[in-house]
Amino acid sequence: MFLRIDKLQVELPVAEHPDPSAARLVQELLGGRFGEMTTLMCYTYQSFNFRGRRELKPFYDLVANIAAEELGHIELVAATINGLLSGTAARGPSPDARLSGVAGAGNPHHFLVSGQGALPVNSLGAPWTGDNVFTSGDVVLDMLHNFFLECGARMGKLRVYESSTNPISRAMCGYLLVRGGVHQLAYARALEKLTGVEMSRMLNVPKISNESIPEARAFHEKAVHRTLYRFSPDDYRDVDKVWNGRHPEDGSELRVVDGPPEGAAMPNLPEEPQVYAPGYDPRELHEIAARLMRGA
Amino acid sequence: MFLRIDKLQVELPVAEHPDPSAARLVQELLGGRFGEMTTLMCYTYQSFNFRGRRELKPFYDLVANIAAEELGHIELVAATINGLLSGTAARGPSPDARLSGVAGAGNPHHFLVSGQGALPVNSLGAPWTGDNVFTSGDVVLDMLHNFFLECGARMGKLRVYESSTNPISRAMCGYLLVRGGVHQLAYARALEKLTGVEMSRMLNVPKISNESIPEARAFHEKAVHRTLYRFSPDDYRDVDKVWNGRHPEDGSELRVVDGPPEGAAMPNLPEEPQVYAPGYDPRELHEIAARLMRGA
Amino acid sequence: MFLRIDKLQVELPVAEHPDPSAARLVQELLGGRFGEMTTLMCYTYQSFNFRGRRELKPFYDLVANIAAEELGHIELVAATINGLLSGTAARGPSPDARLSGVAGAGNPHHFLVSGQGALPVNSLGAPWTGDNVFTSGDVVLDMLHNFFLECGARMGKLRVYESSTNPISRAMCGYLLVRGGVHQLAYARALEKLTGVEMSRMLNVPKISNESIPEARAFHEKAVHRTLYRFSPDDYRDVDKVWNGRHPEDGSELRVVDGPPEGAAMPNLPEEPQVYAPGYDPRELHEIAARLMRGA
Amino acid sequence: MFLRIDKLQVELPVAEHPDPSAARLVQELLGGRFGEMTTLMCYTYQSFNFRGRRELKPFYDLVANIAAEELGHIELVAATINGLLSGTAARGPSPDARLSGVAGAGNPHHFLVSGQGALPVNSLGAPWTGDNVFTSGDVVLDMLHNFFLECGARMGKLRVYESSTNPISRAMCGYLLVRGGVHQLAYARALEKLTGVEMSRMLNVPKISNESIPEARAFHEKAVHRTLYRFSPDDYRDVDKVWNGRHPEDGSELRVVDGPPEGAAMPNLPEEPQVYAPGYDPRELHEIAARLMRGA
Amino acid sequence: MFLRIDKLQVELPVAEHPDPSAARLVQELLGGRFGEMTTLMCYTYQSFNFRGRRELKPFYDLVANIAAEELGHIELVAATINGLLSGTAARGPSPDARLSGVAGAGNPHHFLVSGQGALPVNSLGAPWTGDNVFTSGDVVLDMLHNFFLECGARMGKLRVYESSTNPISRAMCGYLLVRGGVHQLAYARALEKLTGVEMSRMLNVPKISNESIPEARAFHEKAVHRTLYRFSPDDYRDVDKVWNGRHPEDGSELRVVDGPPEGAAMPNLPEEPQVYAPGYDPRELHEIAARLMRGA
Amino acid sequence: MFLRIDKLQVELPVAEHPDPSAARLVQELLGGRFGEMTTLMCYTYQSFNFRGRRELKPFYDLVANIAAEELGHIELVAATINGLLSGTAARGPSPDARLSGVAGAGNPHHFLVSGQGALPVNSLGAPWTGDNVFTSGDVVLDMLHNFFLECGARMGKLRVYESSTNPISRAMCGYLLVRGGVHQLAYARALEKLTGVEMSRMLNVPKISNESIPEARAFHEKAVHRTLYRFSPDDYRDVDKVWNGRHPEDGSELRVVDGPPEGAAMPNLPEEPQVYAPGYDPRELHEIAARLMRGA
Repeated sequence: MFLRIDKLQVELPVAEHPDPSAARLVQELLGGRFGEMTTLMCYTYQSFNFRGRRELKPFYDLVANIAAEELGHIELVAATINGLLSGTAARGPSPDARLSGVAGAGNPHHFLVSGQGALPVNSLGAPWTGDNVFTSGDVVLDMLHNFFLECGARMGKLRVYESSTNPISRAMCGYLLVRGGVHQLAYARALEKLTGVEMSRMLNVPKISNESIPEARAFHEKAVHRTLYRFSPDDYRDVDKVWNGRHPEDGSELRVVDGPPEGAAMPNLPEEPQVYAPGYDPRELHEIAARLMRGA
Repeated sequence: MFLRIDKLQVELPVAEHPDPSAARLVQELLGGRFGEMTTLMCYTYQSFNFRGRRELKPFYDLVANIAAEELGHIELVAATINGLLSGTAARGPSPDARLSGVAGAGNPHHFLVSGQGALPVNSLGAPWTGDNVFTSGDVVLDMLHNFFLECGARMGKLRVYESSTNPISRAMCGYLLVRGGVHQLAYARALEKLTGVEMSRMLNVPKISNESIPEARAFHEKAVHRTLYRFSPDDYRDVDKVWNGRHPEDGSELRVVDGPPEGAAMPNLPEEPQVYAPGYDPRELHEIAARLMRGA
Repeated sequence: MFLRIDKLQVELPVAEHPDPSAARLVQELLGGRFGEMTTLMCYTYQSFNFRGRRELKPFYDLVANIAAEELGHIELVAATINGLLSGTAARGPSPDARLSGVAGAGNPHHFLVSGQGALPVNSLGAPWTGDNVFTSGDVVLDMLHNFFLECGARMGKLRVYESSTNPISRAMCGYLLVRGGVHQLAYARALEKLTGVEMSRMLNVPKISNESIPEARAFHEKAVHRTLYRFSPDDYRDVDKVWNGRHPEDGSELRVVDGPPEGAAMPNLPEEPQVYAPGYDPRELHEIAARLMRGA
Repeated sequence: MFLRIDKLQVELPVAEHPDPSAARLVQELLGGRFGEMTTLMCYTYQSFNFRGRRELKPFYDLVANIAAEELGHIELVAATINGLLSGTAARGPSPDARLSGVAGAGNPHHFLVSGQGALPVNSLGAPWTGDNVFTSGDVVLDMLHNFFLECGARMGKLRVYESSTNPISRAMCGYLLVRGGVHQLAYARALEKLTGVEMSRMLNVPKISNESIPEARAFHEKAVHRTLYRFSPDDYRDVDKVWNGRHPEDGSELRVVDGPPEGAAMPNLPEEPQVYAPGYDPRELHEIAARLMRGA
Repeated sequence: MFLRIDKLQVELPVAEHPDPSAARLVQELLGGRFGEMTTLMCYTYQSFNFRGRRELKPFYDLVANIAAEELGHIELVAATINGLLSGTAARGPSPDARLSGVAGAGNPHHFLVSGQGALPVNSLGAPWTGDNVFTSGDVVLDMLHNFFLECGARMGKLRVYESSTNPISRAMCGYLLVRGGVHQLAYARALEKLTGVEMSRMLNVPKISNESIPEARAFHEKAVHRTLYRFSPDDYRDVDKVWNGRHPEDGSELRVVDGPPEGAAMPNLPEEPQVYAPGYDPRELHEIAARLMRGA
Repeated sequence: MFLRIDKLQVELPVAEHPDPSAARLVQELLGGRFGEMTTLMCYTYQSFNFRGRRELKPFYDLVANIAAEELGHIELVAATINGLLSGTAARGPSPDARLSGVAGAGNPHHFLVSGQGALPVNSLGAPWTGDNVFTSGDVVLDMLHNFFLECGARMGKLRVYESSTNPISRAMCGYLLVRGGVHQLAYARALEKLTGVEMSRMLNVPKISNESIPEARAFHEKAVHRTLYRFSPDDYRDVDKVWNGRHPEDGSELRVVDGPPEGAAMPNLPEEPQVYAPGYDPRELHEIAARLMRGA
């Protein structure tokens, strides 16, 4: 079972200027082969299918707990895309050719299909697919996959970061580079425990440190890079059997924090009447709200 | 953000006999167009993309909260599939042609790919895809979609129920028929509040009452069919602005319960050495566990 | 069986200026999830699979007859795309880099694959797929689906309308908004007959009247919005058992007209030699025609 | 525009015994790469996109007219599948495990998704896709494609014929082998007129005559193999500029018949209550019918 | 078995200016339905599956040998794409928003996924798929398919040629038009031998001679258009039983050359540090090389 | 460029009994996500896209050379599938319901589409797709991917081995386990050279030695497990800069052999007239052969 908290894991700045092209590219981090939908669903299904979880509980706990964090990551990337899409079209009631200004821009489904909202697709607009899920049942093979997956995901974030100067996109990439780095290291540690091979020496794939990314470095200073949050009221307590020792980059001590990060308030996405989102004008919205409050 | 609790929403019986063919069919409820992956992701993305959430907060709360429950539903269907797959192949170490007995049975990926585990695919083995997600941004259209989606999902559960006498499959279908019925009614109520059209009169699509299904009726007696759980420590408190009034079938009062259902312990899936799940023999598992506990 | 008439259902203006980007967007109405290929094939397969058609003949007649009309709709959207594509590239014989001016524009398959012609794909260029067809066998569920589908299709048309000022695109959207409205109301009426729930009160999803769209309003004045054409020489005569009563917007009487609308002449698409469509120069075309007329 | 006639192009025998496995295979002729959906949509889109249709009218007429016939072919294959599926499951009201007898049989979507109805999918259950449509704009290339497509389709029909002894499947294959042969020859003739290459000498690909198939030979005796029906009240009159001369197998004269074949009554598919098709019991059906007749 | 030679089949000029949009279009010739991946895999699988190869050895040899040449064709198209992508982004170490200049250009996967490298996808970025492979087992049908496939491929090359003035793209198209013409004629000859129908009269589909393309004409002068290379040390010697006679365009004699063409040196693709290709700076590369040479 | 030799890399026994179900499963090793099409195309595209190949020549040579070997692997798996399919259907001329005995068996496309031949699809019949290709441009990430890919491929082979007792299937799995082990170790060595992390200690994923598989052990005795063949007349000579040192399992010395293995004669696949493969009867085949030899 899962619970939900109406907060983002980290605060995102407001998009400085709407940018349908950047929104299209950021989709790669949501619905691409190495995007957050894939990390989420790989770890979720691996936790569902885990056999021998009694004896291998620390590994089960690790995968199951990281899966829970990934739910917050798809949320964060979606919020970035929604931020980038807000205000892209000429705002106002239709019909008035208000979408003509974005007719050739970005992903057309952001306007014709989702009403300026995020979609589970990649930067080409191709849908995320269950074929991206790897769950072999073999714990070493699954951990090796997960380590590789996080390396591939790191590459994706670095390239998307490189594609835009928009603060919302950069802030999201910076935070997820740090959190992805934690997951990458966690699976490296798991492989070390299982096979003795020192995978944590291969952390910087590609060969650049998160310290070089200003929006990531800020989180290093807050110890976010060496912290595994336990995203559960009471469970998954054996994650510290894997997540322990020292961080390979700065030698700081790895630590487990009980509970999620403090998080930040959900942004209130502005209305986009030209795509009928949410489909009511302000007066009507007010009336509906009033009616519901009266219990009708 | 999301938290995770290491429990199933409801207890499942042990599968009476392993059944790869039933496991293949149950996949329709997980990765099919009307399966739980679809309900989960539709509501999740609708909550991400919700515009005007301040004024329409009761609808936002409803969708966001049901999304959280759906996470437990993919978990429950996966547990059913895993239960049905346990013991299907001749258990023991390879190589000894141990999979030859299931060479023509069920979904071959259950043996060759996932190691007797659930996959995000439908009954044909085709992967779940992001194309199944509907998020238009228009609140009435999204609610209408969700109502229709739950009707389609209801049909799927009834037909899968009809396909097997295995207790684990039937118990899962029974519970999800009831919970799906709650979601169906919730979206019907939302449409009633928004448009005045009495959608709750169209609950039994197809035309059979949950009362006719023994495994569902049991939950009616425990009021599960008129209960909306609030799957959150503190948020989504305005769901009661939509989920109120009387149940159209028995006239009982709709109620909101704070927090998730009590739930049941996660089953410990037995090891399946012939597919290397988890890939260690019992002695090795013991050693790994001992080593981790020593902090090595 | 089907017969074909070499006319469009309605006259389309000439595209004012060629526009590959608009052509790409209009494809959403042809091959998108809620495009005319989907409405066509949903109703066609539902009519093929209809069980109990003797007792439920009015519903069978309705679905089967609307399917026939939808054939003319894919034709109309394709004609719009073809109109928008005519003249986009530098017209003349190759090789002379005549496509270099459209190298980054619109859907590249319109130039490299179809020779400036329509394709059964959506606005991303992704192919229409049979997964879009819903045919459950349950008449209420099918009608509910169809009603929802028409609402989703309405959203698509409104957003494509909003994307362009090109008269051909707007004229097509206007006409199809009206005809789609007829189908939406027809399925609403079917649901009312079957369940008693007043679905026709939910016609304007999204919340804008066709009356607000000049290119649609013109057809209201000609009663097109309250007319169900019987697209058959002799069959489907019981459609009037469902299509009767008053239009929910203006209270006018719903009526059945025997036979198709008058229609308009097929446009003669100009030749595009740079993509070898049709692959002969005018002199050669003349010779071929002369030869055929001589019976050779 | 299109009109619809509530008849099949040819009479089909009743399926001697229900057969979900045969139904699954026959799907290849409906939604496979060389199935009737593909021939239908190739010719339909080629007719939509035809440039230079004034000068090349006989070719335009040919393609446009054959497209209309193909609509009746998807209808005929669907009727065969529906005939094979009728009675496969234990007929009666649910819940009573009535689908357990077909849990491992055929295409599971025939039971879980379509309610024992045909789907636009192939023999693997994979959906038909717009990628199967070929429309290049070049008239020679399109005719060459169509000739090849009909050869490939012929192979498919011969192999499906070879897979079953069920009379309904064989009758359908026999008829479509003959009609497909007409289309194959028509495109061969078109290529002969355009290029001078004697394609009609390559008719029997693969190398077996329709005369060897009893269910096909019967139609040869009725001249069906040398008849091009004009599926239109008034149009496409220049098909005889291409469809003329002698049949390469028996030297008989090719002829054009105005209007469709006589056809046969649509079979009334029996109800399948266990999959809720159509979802009402006989008493309810009677009441609905009575109510509609009263105009309510 | 296959051997590899580290050379291109023909020399390519350096791309005059980087062009992500042209790179995207050229992908159609690599991973499109009629691209080189398709010709390669069709002939490869037909050679694998060839039944009766003893008696039909000349046809087997022909298909197997052309398959080997096609491996060099995917190599050549990939080299063109890589040439067009080199230098598109601001070259230098990240992070410095170096990809922002190409954020809306071409195929985003060329930057986010492949690191400015070719991918097995078409001009839309959709992946090549095994559905493109045709292998029926019937030798006439396979040859007919192959002839049609080469005609379709010819159309693709002509249209891509028409899309760009970049010398690298034009040179590649010119060479492949000639080599594709050889394959087209080879399959025409095969059909002539098998059926007697003079397919080689249909070579110029579409209706333009390679002689009209300057970059193709140059190879005609070197007899490349009438040469079948035997891509094997010792095998496939019976290709001359099919590839013989005169070229239909210029009457020159068809000839078989033992062994591959002379070829040209592989271009050394420059490093693109902003996408981490290959991920080391020059000093590090030097150190690695030195270390390996020392045997460490 | 590539050359082809008309031999298999290793001799395969004749299939003891035809088995369509085993043929379907073996397809996973050909067209599955971890099948030979994927290893082939990953290494092929990585070699096409390699930047900095001058400095990193040993790594380029390694990847380019292994790609050439993989061509022989798809050939070997296809030969196994063809062996398993030969004789499955009642052999003889149609029409005589000869495929009715295999109507529910294996992959229906093996009979309806490919004429009892291998296809580029997985065990579900889903086509191989270019989405399976990983080519990031970063040499460490690519090597890590390749190491993981070979581990996943190893799991696939072990499970397919476990699924059948048919000698042809087991012999193929045994050989490919050994050759895949060589590639796995080669990429481990590459990572060791680049990062210093001892990946070769992780060879047995999953945790079973090839020594336990009789059909693999035989090749160990012939040193096949420590041999890298140089599949080129003259190139890729620096593979020994990476492939050197000792084998981690038995301490034997790694060696490079110039040229391919000796190989074995291609099997002559028997004719299957019921599916028209190759479509001629023996007398006709004889006539065609004689005619070609006469030069006609």
